[in-house]
Amino acid sequence: MINHDFIKQLALATPSKIVMLVIDGLGGLPDPKTGRTELETARLPHLDALARKGICGLADPVSPGITPGSGPGHLALFGYDPVVNEIGRGVLEAVGIDIELTAGDVAARGNFATVDDKGIVTDRRAGRIPTEKSAELCKLLDGMTLDGVKVMVYPVREHRFVAVFRGENLQPELTDADPGRTGVAPLEVKAMGTPARNTAAIVNKFIVKARKILTDHHPANMILLRGFAKKPDLPTLPEIYKLKPLAIAVYPMYRGLARLAGMAVAPAGKTLEDQVAALKENYADYDFFFLHVKGTDSAGEDGDFARKVKILEQVDALIPKITALQPDVLVVTGDHATPAAYGGHSWHAVPVLISARYCGADAVQTFAEPAFIAGGLGRLASQQIMTLAMANALKLAKYGA
Amino acid sequence: MINHDFIKQLALATPSKIVMLVIDGLGGLPDPKTGRTELETARLPHLDALARKGICGLADPVSPGITPGSGPGHLALFGYDPVVNEIGRGVLEAVGIDIELTAGDVAARGNFATVDDKGIVTDRRAGRIPTEKSAELCKLLDGMTLDGVKVMVYPVREHRFVAVFRGENLQPELTDADPGRTGVAPLEVKAMGTPARNTAAIVNKFIVKARKILTDHHPANMILLRGFAKKPDLPTLPEIYKLKPLAIAVYPMYRGLARLAGMAVAPAGKTLEDQVAALKENYADYDFFFLHVKGTDSAGEDGDFARKVKILEQVDALIPKITALQPDVLVVTGDHATPAAYGGHSWHAVPVLISARYCGADAVQTFAEPAFIAGGLGRLASQQIMTLAMANALKLAKYGA
Repeated sequence: MINHDFIKQLALATPSKIVMLVIDGLGGLPDPKTGRTELETARLPHLDALARKGICGLADPVSPGITPGSGPGHLALFGYDPVVNEIGRGVLEAVGIDIELTAGDVAARGNFATVDDKGIVTDRRAGRIPTEKSAELCKLLDGMTLDGVKVMVYPVREHRFVAVFRGENLQPELTDADPGRTGVAPLEVKAMGTPARNTAAIVNKFIVKARKILTDHHPANMILLRGFAKKPDLPTLPEIYKLKPLAIAVYPMYRGLARLAGMAVAPAGKTLEDQVAALKENYADYDFFFLHVKGTDSAGEDGDFARKVKILEQVDALIPKITALQPDVLVVTGDHATPAAYGGHSWHAVPVLISARYCGADAVQTFAEPAFIAGGLGRLASQQIMTLAMANALKLAKYGA
Repeated sequence: MINHDFIKQLALATPSKIVMLVIDGLGGLPDPKTGRTELETARLPHLDALARKGICGLADPVSPGITPGSGPGHLALFGYDPVVNEIGRGVLEAVGIDIELTAGDVAARGNFATVDDKGIVTDRRAGRIPTEKSAELCKLLDGMTLDGVKVMVYPVREHRFVAVFRGENLQPELTDADPGRTGVAPLEVKAMGTPARNTAAIVNKFIVKARKILTDHHPANMILLRGFAKKPDLPTLPEIYKLKPLAIAVYPMYRGLARLAGMAVAPAGKTLEDQVAALKENYADYDFFFLHVKGTDSAGEDGDFARKVKILEQVDALIPKITALQPDVLVVTGDHATPAAYGGHSWHAVPVLISARYCGADAVQTFAEPAFIAGGLGRLASQQIMTLAMANALKLAKYGA
């Protein structure tokens, strides 16, 4: 696989515009009752028309057989190697609630938990306390300074929170405090190597202080931290591709992932219509647009075939508003498959369509998995989609004479 | 991707023969008027017959989305990684006029240019002086020796020439003297690192001398050098594959690229018929034949759909003369696509066909892009074609027991 330094040499800043429509969890499995996938079941006249004019294929986000989380799935679509560029859990949780991390921060996922008199964990989730309660407790823990390191604590949902350690020379190579099961004491955080020793000591001090503060807050009388991580040092889309990219995503995690890739973030409203309106409003000021549709993934996760079909039809209805802007390149794909019949992210290859003046032709007539198998893009790695989008936007110079 | 050391272990010298017919710029885009590509438009009865009997697919010369120049495109077909093995501009220009470089030479592309009294570049191409004039001026600059380094100057076309520096310890890591624009003075050549310092000094001395010699030759009163490069140190086809390869190409650049890969070069005449005659004449003495067809690429570059179609039909008419020789393996492919509708080299995948006794079967009935999408070779890297040709010629031993 060619690398970013290679692309950098060839990338050209031009006025041409790329819209990448990411339908989260796109790609499914046949409904056992009908034998047809969500895409085959949905009425998608506009996506079908794009498939007839454009060039289609199937993409593997990480590698055949690997089921990606949202992090790797999106990194691949943004042109990064999702295996080399891992995003730690703590960082993903932080960007997922719109926290802007600085380069030296160490972030961790946290649970409020219950321990008994002997300090043994009896409930890893503190009875799933409500988010409002969790937010109050976070306030009690937030803002302390330990050996010059500031600790910030942000509520997520129910018992979950994010802890961010900000200071000099912090290192994320730390073992989890969360034992992952009940009946044992929380674990001491240990440094995996000398450079992280000081960070381990600070984190352990924080846990001790937190336990004291929470003594009278049963069932949330303890915290469990895990997934310590620093923000990955990714070269940005402007650096690699000379793009001016904008993310239009309703859910914060996707805005956060886009920010890691150097994208600006637009207020996206709450609905698909809001998002398309934001695209139109910002169209003149950027040349790459990441438009993220969440509902398809949620429906797939819930195993709700009919709802996924319905949301696909809603997306289809918005296509004319996007094509009316006449982007030079329109990419329609997903970050991973979420088949309703399976009820979760899956390892299946994801449909990808490129519509552009010089995209080439294939015989694909409908926007659906079985048709895309015979598409002219063939089988590719999701990481290669970005290069193809750039090529079709005539934003890549010839390599070699 | 398997590497050359791996192949070397398996390669067998056998009497079987491989003909690789490279139709430059093979692969196109639909004509907007008809919806059919050049290959779909052309009448190609013999290539269609080969497609029915052989196995077909689509190849990416460098990587999906990357538009290759002729250098990377051919290196890939000869089995080299075109990203790792870059051919510098100076070397490509030199091999393009049949100059045989030795291992230590540093070659550069040169322009005759115009500077004003203050030494400011007013025309980077000296009014595109005719080739004959350029040839006279090259004679004035050719043959001087500076600090033991011999400088050879060869005319190319119009204002363009090649300068070759031959001596001890020359290094090509040098910045360009050509500023790439008018209104500024030519740049001093600088070493990118200590080892090239001496070479930089010699090159700068040459430029000073050249300017003096050219003083009275306005508009060609200056030279601009760029693209300093050494011949890449490629393992040759005889070394890797135990082949005895012959190149039959009308244009010098392709002979030069073949020489870099260790091929012998046959006098190829001027026409396709001459080339096929040269193939026949030399058939007994070699076991790998690289037959290069240029016209398809030129027609594509000119955006001349009809001419590209016509040349494809001319190539098709010669196929029976090639198959009459009964090569064990016939490969038909291109170094990159040059769609007439696009008017230049492009990033699109290139048709590839292998015809051989044990090549296997697929359902492809016609020699054209859309049909090849469903071919049995699938989508592959051009670099892998050489290994497949070797396998089909039964020139590769089994790997492992």
